Amino acid sequence: MLLLHLSDVNEASWAEAFAKALAPYPVVRRGDDFDPADVRYMFVWKPKPDAFDGMSGLEAILSLGAGVDALLKHPNLPADVPVVRFVDEDLSQRMSDYVVAHVAMHHRLYTRFRRDQKARRWSQLYPPSASQSTVGIMGLGVLGQDAARRLAPLGFTLRGWSRTAKTIEGMTCFSGAGSFQDFLQGTDILVNLLPLTPETTGILSYETFRALRHGQLEGGPVIINAARGGHQREADIVRALGDGTLGAASLDVFEVEPLPPESPLWDLENCYITPHIAAISDEKSGVRYFSQIVRDHLKGKPLINVVDRHRGY
Amino acid sequence: MLLLHLSDVNEASWAEAFAKALAPYPVVRRGDDFDPADVRYMFVWKPKPDAFDGMSGLEAILSLGAGVDALLKHPNLPADVPVVRFVDEDLSQRMSDYVVAHVAMHHRLYTRFRRDQKARRWSQLYPPSASQSTVGIMGLGVLGQDAARRLAPLGFTLRGWSRTAKTIEGMTCFSGAGSFQDFLQGTDILVNLLPLTPETTGILSYETFRALRHGQLEGGPVIINAARGGHQREADIVRALGDGTLGAASLDVFEVEPLPPESPLWDLENCYITPHIAAISDEKSGVRYFSQIVRDHLKGKPLINVVDRHRGY
Repeated sequence: MLLLHLSDVNEASWAEAFAKALAPYPVVRRGDDFDPADVRYMFVWKPKPDAFDGMSGLEAILSLGAGVDALLKHPNLPADVPVVRFVDEDLSQRMSDYVVAHVAMHHRLYTRFRRDQKARRWSQLYPPSASQSTVGIMGLGVLGQDAARRLAPLGFTLRGWSRTAKTIEGMTCFSGAGSFQDFLQGTDILVNLLPLTPETTGILSYETFRALRHGQLEGGPVIINAARGGHQREADIVRALGDGTLGAASLDVFEVEPLPPESPLWDLENCYITPHIAAISDEKSGVRYFSQIVRDHLKGKPLINVVDRHRGY
Repeated sequence: MLLLHLSDVNEASWAEAFAKALAPYPVVRRGDDFDPADVRYMFVWKPKPDAFDGMSGLEAILSLGAGVDALLKHPNLPADVPVVRFVDEDLSQRMSDYVVAHVAMHHRLYTRFRRDQKARRWSQLYPPSASQSTVGIMGLGVLGQDAARRLAPLGFTLRGWSRTAKTIEGMTCFSGAGSFQDFLQGTDILVNLLPLTPETTGILSYETFRALRHGQLEGGPVIINAARGGHQREADIVRALGDGTLGAASLDVFEVEPLPPESPLWDLENCYITPHIAAISDEKSGVRYFSQIVRDHLKGKPLINVVDRHRGY
């Protein structure tokens, strides 16, 4: 039996789609009449504190979100049940759409030209070509690699940083805390696609911004955060955007969401806010992906994209 | 002898670079002491009315600009001397940088999210993925093809329109006036990279905008003009941006440049103005390109990228 436990999204719609995809395998929702002991799979998003009570036969927890940082902090998450992350081409495409759009617009000095336009000022300046600009991607998993694959044909010089060493074609790769400064020092536009773990919490700090390359992009280096609000120190971002340590920032995620109306970020001309919409877990793709995982597992195949709880993603 | 005749750019700097690249071949500027009859090559940008007087030995006119529409209207342009256009990888890269940045930012509904930000409004909406959006490129020469090559890996659906029929991988190609409506009807984001000719003058008109696909991009379809101001009817753009026929416009070129302070375009929130800086003819690339052409021609090789004056580019 598959149980859906989804908060803040249309659970009924997902349930209907799963029932259709898995029929005749039983699919239930929280309010339905079923024995918790019969639940083998749970598909969750923001599960309530008692979500896992009585689920003695649980074999896998399927996470609607690609990021599992909040789920792993659930106080009653069963310790021995594997958690499966959502890894999806459609989600990767949307995330890359966001990343490419913001990298490209900052590279073309969008803030400067918009300021000129408001002043009715015709002031010519030729941005550097993409090949003269370096994009540094933090996090080289599925999302980071997809972004790199799309940025490379645009001509950008690419570098990447990850926890463990990786080799990716067309990209200079750095890994581990020891090489973080080297990575930052050659980066004009910093893109964050890291998982949120204790090690990466608050990594987008004033100290990090100060280490980025200055002088290549008019106005200063740029950060783009499409991962988690927990990665960023918003007070540091406000300070850096104000004193020229950063030229601009694109933020899709925030320490508190929705971003509170009193946040100073809203009013900064060089801060580009989107309401956590960089990428969504699409229902059609999600049902296809997780149905396949359930069907395969029922046939005895191993689960894929299982979270390493110690690593945190 | 190569004569430089450049207005509005640093002629001295170009002359020095050409002299170095072609030495010992003689390179002169307008004020220098030389016999006009000795000039075999002229490198020009915005030539004065008397620029070609007495140039009886002229074998080629080299145009600093990629677009030759203004040059071909020069009242005293020698009728029988071939005109060579600037075709350059660096110029193509910069033009594509501009095109990609504006396509991507409009696709990600930049205007809507900026409006929300100013109102401190957290309103989630997921833009379509790139693969659900169609970019239509008008003009499939070197620049149009380069833009297509960079947009394709981003996942956009591509269609193109040109005067003569072309076959380009990964793109649905339309050609000629008869298929222009078909081309427009499937286009969400229209990119203009056409040469300016009598046939293409004013092609960015209200009638064209009305034919674009509505309903796919929230706010309406988008135009991006990186070619020539003569392609666009600015009164039509103002009207279309105001009544929802267009969702947004990115304009790098204008009917009159610099764009006059009284133009209503400056104040439109959904009009994105840049001061004709999409791409520049870079000195280093230009000297390399035209020096090679001169050297090859001196050795008896034929000229490349010669303008078809009847066609207009």
